[in-house]
Amino acid sequence: MIGLEAMANFTVIAKEGEARVGVLQTAHGRVETPVFMPVGTQGSVKALDPEDLRTAGAQIILGNTYHLNLRPTSELIKQLGGLHQFMGWDGPILTDSGGFQAFSLGDMIAHGIRKVPNSSNKSSLDNPTLKPTLAKISEEGVQFTSHIDGSKHLLTPERSIEIQLNLGSDIVLVLDELLSPMHNRDYARQSLERTHRWELRSLKYFQEHVADSINPNAQIFGIVQGVYDKKIRQAEAKWVAEQDFDGISIGGSMGTSEFYNGDDDVTAETISIDWAASKAIAKTVEWVVPFLPASWPRHVLGIGEIQNLFDCVQRGADMFDCVAATRRARNGSLYISPKQGGKVQNKYTLLISKAEYKMDAKPIDQLCSCYTCQHFTRAYLRHLYLAKELLYYRLASIHNVYFLSNLMSQMREAIQNQELQKLKKEWTD
Amino acid sequence: MIGLEAMANFTVIAKEGEARVGVLQTAHGRVETPVFMPVGTQGSVKALDPEDLRTAGAQIILGNTYHLNLRPTSELIKQLGGLHQFMGWDGPILTDSGGFQAFSLGDMIAHGIRKVPNSSNKSSLDNPTLKPTLAKISEEGVQFTSHIDGSKHLLTPERSIEIQLNLGSDIVLVLDELLSPMHNRDYARQSLERTHRWELRSLKYFQEHVADSINPNAQIFGIVQGVYDKKIRQAEAKWVAEQDFDGISIGGSMGTSEFYNGDDDVTAETISIDWAASKAIAKTVEWVVPFLPASWPRHVLGIGEIQNLFDCVQRGADMFDCVAATRRARNGSLYISPKQGGKVQNKYTLLISKAEYKMDAKPIDQLCSCYTCQHFTRAYLRHLYLAKELLYYRLASIHNVYFLSNLMSQMREAIQNQELQKLKKEWTD
Repeated sequence: MIGLEAMANFTVIAKEGEARVGVLQTAHGRVETPVFMPVGTQGSVKALDPEDLRTAGAQIILGNTYHLNLRPTSELIKQLGGLHQFMGWDGPILTDSGGFQAFSLGDMIAHGIRKVPNSSNKSSLDNPTLKPTLAKISEEGVQFTSHIDGSKHLLTPERSIEIQLNLGSDIVLVLDELLSPMHNRDYARQSLERTHRWELRSLKYFQEHVADSINPNAQIFGIVQGVYDKKIRQAEAKWVAEQDFDGISIGGSMGTSEFYNGDDDVTAETISIDWAASKAIAKTVEWVVPFLPASWPRHVLGIGEIQNLFDCVQRGADMFDCVAATRRARNGSLYISPKQGGKVQNKYTLLISKAEYKMDAKPIDQLCSCYTCQHFTRAYLRHLYLAKELLYYRLASIHNVYFLSNLMSQMREAIQNQELQKLKKEWTD
Repeated sequence: MIGLEAMANFTVIAKEGEARVGVLQTAHGRVETPVFMPVGTQGSVKALDPEDLRTAGAQIILGNTYHLNLRPTSELIKQLGGLHQFMGWDGPILTDSGGFQAFSLGDMIAHGIRKVPNSSNKSSLDNPTLKPTLAKISEEGVQFTSHIDGSKHLLTPERSIEIQLNLGSDIVLVLDELLSPMHNRDYARQSLERTHRWELRSLKYFQEHVADSINPNAQIFGIVQGVYDKKIRQAEAKWVAEQDFDGISIGGSMGTSEFYNGDDDVTAETISIDWAASKAIAKTVEWVVPFLPASWPRHVLGIGEIQNLFDCVQRGADMFDCVAATRRARNGSLYISPKQGGKVQNKYTLLISKAEYKMDAKPIDQLCSCYTCQHFTRAYLRHLYLAKELLYYRLASIHNVYFLSNLMSQMREAIQNQELQKLKKEWTD
């Protein structure tokens, strides 16, 4: 299917190099790509309601299979009309498969890996002690222990899809297993083969049950999994591209010292822990894109750093999700554009708690048109943040979601004008 | 001035018995009374922004002198244009004097009194052990120890008014001292005389400085203080009525066993602790209203229980404030009308955490037109509450504020149609 520029669900309308502007049709409306998807883990993008999301420019949101199935359960949500009706969001929803939680509750704990590196966790290799885990993987699926009440749950590929169909998701993801840099070559090979079988079981269950689900026009995306190894990733991409999916999600680039094949300047040290290491994820996209159908929308899982968004869009990625925008907002870290002092080094953010904003009557970003920047000052937001006022979390989250949504909109416009490189230069130089 | 039905700031447009509908003019617009005022302690009505407040029907809000002066300080707020501009609310604001905080950090702690009674505090008289206090009262004013950083602050009558003028309040309250049921007769007499001197010092400072403040058209309300004793309260009312105020706030009815003069069926037991004891506050309003200028708007401090609102409106009170609406919302307690099961016994609330709402696709109250009831189900709100999602607090607060605002609107309409008693019967029988 490589080379097709248009299919039922996705149409590419402009290109600049590998970067592209597309329109993704879903059962709940269209999405212009490249797009940033805010994450609504528990049936709510934290602190925001659907009207806030619309005002903040969100086109599509992500829901978490693992969390929603534990509470309030996918069966309850189905009985209440599905996740759209339950949370009052009538736009598109993409749901993950629970695979990331299998990893984050399992080997991510065991191997001492964090998604965002910090000083206490410079290298997982320094910490060979395995910690207790809440997830175990077998051929059948993932055995979870609930982080809420300790109850046991078996997440099979079939069950993952059943949950997502219960939720009425517009875009369903197949169940996969993530790999850690601590896994050895043998484990990785076995895991990737098992993920193939899981993807096919997911696809089969989806095809047999979607017509009778509450969202019969749902789509299903495959996942390109694998470690930070060009040959392995490309072999995986080829395999996935041959299956009957509607799109593709590109799994986390954890990298590994053992597998690393030395074809660029990314060292094992820099990428083994830093999940979002810009070069690693951008390289991964670069490696796999030539092997993917052009007609498939390409989603990069769990990526939201601004420099990564530029790097991945430039290499042909279309969809992104990340909790960073809303989590950072809650922690007092608010996005600012380059003209306001935003740069890679400060992650394009200011820290609202700083004393310098005490009397600052300016909005967070003078170039921003979000609801928060139109109505409130840095001084007021700083006061709310320090006083731990609930209103802070909403206003800050509106800004950060708007900021990334607006950046993606600028990227779409730039690509249509063949100016993505120029825009990237303005942001990253 | 008794008997005047119209003055510059307040016009009575309808009456039913003592109950009345009025229009209060302020520097930031008009307020229809009877009115419920949500409390914005720290420059934000918790979880709500100004647009939410408008949608929830709030006409006027209350700000707290004590809290705002500690953080971010009234000087900072003044430099940023005043509280209206700081928090983005362009409607009227009434500020308290800090007197309640003097009491709640002082003798309220020492005497083991709670505003809302609970099982561990059946009677303050059972607990003679004085706890350490954070406020001390002298002729000069109140010496506070900040609950935030332990710093010392002296709140004099002059300073209280200065702070309120810094905030740009539309309605400024004089500084008073609240009395506790544990105070003896001698202390109470001395306190009331000191409060007179404080009220006059407050008024003088206000008259000398309001013209040069950021809100030169601010008004000042006196306070009728005193224990639960008819003669004392009426003497206080007469005294206040002779001063040059624009309106009146009726202070907390704490009651006392020693003072209680036995002219109705309220026992010391039932009123000594329960601040909001319906009969006590209603009686207090009944006692003082004949001695107050009819042209003064009458504010009952810290009252928000539905039966109290009816009882006090019926006796001629016009304005109410209480944190209960928003605090209850945050604690899972949501208002319902009588047709939905609301009654005095359940405080007109349902507890959203209850299992019976797990699958409930109805809004909180089927007769309610608030934003939350128009868009979200009990099942969803229950899920958000149990999952501690930030969105819950906003949606719940919108409902509870709307509910009380709407109830006051129904009361206004009822009074105009001479049907307040009928409405009260529907709610309280």
